[in-house]
Amino acid sequence: MKLFFGDVFQEHAILTQEESHHFTKVLRGKLNDIIYVTNGTGTLIKGKATDVHAKEVTVSIDEKFDEFERKNYRLHMVVAPTKNMDRLEFFLEKATEIGLDEITFIQSFHSERKALKIERIEKIIQAATKQSLKAYFPIINPLVKFTDFLEAQKTNSADKFIAHCNQTIDRIPLKEQLRSSTGDVVILIGPEGDFSIEEVQLAEKKGFKGISLGHQRFRTETAALQAVFATDWELGEK
Amino acid sequence: MKLFFGDVFQEHAILTQEESHHFTKVLRGKLNDIIYVTNGTGTLIKGKATDVHAKEVTVSIDEKFDEFERKNYRLHMVVAPTKNMDRLEFFLEKATEIGLDEITFIQSFHSERKALKIERIEKIIQAATKQSLKAYFPIINPLVKFTDFLEAQKTNSADKFIAHCNQTIDRIPLKEQLRSSTGDVVILIGPEGDFSIEEVQLAEKKGFKGISLGHQRFRTETAALQAVFATDWELGEK
Repeated sequence: MKLFFGDVFQEHAILTQEESHHFTKVLRGKLNDIIYVTNGTGTLIKGKATDVHAKEVTVSIDEKFDEFERKNYRLHMVVAPTKNMDRLEFFLEKATEIGLDEITFIQSFHSERKALKIERIEKIIQAATKQSLKAYFPIINPLVKFTDFLEAQKTNSADKFIAHCNQTIDRIPLKEQLRSSTGDVVILIGPEGDFSIEEVQLAEKKGFKGISLGHQRFRTETAALQAVFATDWELGEK
Repeated sequence: MKLFFGDVFQEHAILTQEESHHFTKVLRGKLNDIIYVTNGTGTLIKGKATDVHAKEVTVSIDEKFDEFERKNYRLHMVVAPTKNMDRLEFFLEKATEIGLDEITFIQSFHSERKALKIERIEKIIQAATKQSLKAYFPIINPLVKFTDFLEAQKTNSADKFIAHCNQTIDRIPLKEQLRSSTGDVVILIGPEGDFSIEEVQLAEKKGFKGISLGHQRFRTETAALQAVFATDWELGEK
């Protein structure tokens, strides 16, 4: 079962230029091949390739699913990218497979990484979305300063959490928090050196509650992964 | 805070030859440096380097902890290694950080990988154990045929699970199973092509219960990671 990205219209779907190239040149796809197409915003169709060109592949719509496997919760992860890109990329792949709706990269006081190639990140997330047969493509936001991210926060009903290791500031276990959650969750994960006290205090002023992920010392990407797993484990349909 | 492996005696500890080399040559460690040493079976000490040679570093015992951060559950993961070694290695690193007590690699009917360099795997698990400051080194078993693994199973009180995707055979969600668990857990995770029906039936005869990890299509290493996270989430102290 092969899934491609494209535009889905009333009577047919058209693969993006990149996906058309992938279908014709890499996979040697042919006329009448049966494939799946998603628009990345919830619609997924099954159909046959009816017009095959290297730059544009047209697909008939034999079956159509709206809100395909839509999750019953929403998760926005806000993470300080790790110094090592492999670790960040693995996290992104796994998070997408498990259930990620939006990701924002932040540069915080102790961040070691100051720049990020967003195109590469989009590719990884797109590949993981297709591989795990999802019809929703996560929203990807570029790297912003943590203070700017907080400044832009609007008041809404989402459950907002900041994971940190500072034992002088009160924290509640994520488990407890998730079990009384509304299903709309934002989780902040700091850099290798943790958030600074000032950053935690600023986040708290903006409505983020301090959480602990357990008593263990986790790497940044392990903490972020655990937050994604835990959210799906507690809020997702099993 | 630096953790090393070594033998812990009554009055002093001695780093292994490899760790002595690492301390002296790579980290340029010196006399009187304060370091931590674990024997990998629960004991962790803090002390000073009192005798420094490239092949043997002796450490005084200033503080000693037995059963250091011992978990309240035991997890034995039995996995078919992925074709791609990077994915397997990332799983092993994360699993060790989160909480892994024993790992067995199996070759099952649909396995694509028939060989495994166990030395490399030991290195990865050892590094992850040290990095996450653990005093228990997981037991690592070499690659065995799945049928031989099952043959060798003894009757005991452990909760034994086999994760598979075969919808014609009854499965219970892992979540439910864990919530009534004794705390001694064995989980089997199959290869990319899943366990065969015969393998699932054979495992069931040996006391393994079929489990599902959710409705999602996960890669092998994602399924294995989820099982580790879930076990720690449900059974570990938070």
